[in-house]
Amino acid sequence: MEIETLQSTVAATYLERDAERGVDATFRWFAEEVGELARAIRTGERANLELEFSDVLAWLMSLANLLEVDLSDAMGRYAGGCPKCHSSPCVCRMQH
Amino acid sequence: MEIETLQSTVAATYLERDAERGVDATFRWFAEEVGELARAIRTGERANLELEFSDVLAWLMSLANLLEVDLSDAMGRYAGGCPKCHSSPCVCRMQH
Repeated sequence: MEIETLQSTVAATYLERDAERGVDATFRWFAEEVGELARAIRTGERANLELEFSDVLAWLMSLANLLEVDLSDAMGRYAGGCPKCHSSPCVCRMQH
Repeated sequence: MEIETLQSTVAATYLERDAERGVDATFRWFAEEVGELARAIRTGERANLELEFSDVLAWLMSLANLLEVDLSDAMGRYAGGCPKCHSSPCVCRMQH
């Protein structure tokens, strides 16, 4: 699945409502989903864990749409491995 | 850019170190990056904003790798638009 396609689908699905809500309230929704992911990790129920990962990424895409960030372009720095040492596996032992 | 390919690259680059660190400490790193994204939204510096979006998604992928969640599969529920009303734009007005 292409990041570009998915981010476009999230825009077509939610951007109008995301724009009405604004960046700050959308960040709050995103943070709420991060909290739900934390809970899903604790409870460990498989289907719910996958659902919460997808909700976190969908809200991250909503936020990126509002801020006009192309996530696929942004991820280019990770395409060749570690953005610091440009190796995969990372050999610099720096944290990302 | 394919989500699958990117998640595999993140695994090849960091999974060994992610596994040593464990789920809880990796979640803490992810949460720290979410905080840096919040700050980047406030300061509004463009290159830094894109960098922080990429770091949040890379750490989300590290966490998904540790928990054996395939993010591309998980995002399937968003591929056709809203997972609740299955429309794009969403017509149910429910929050995701």
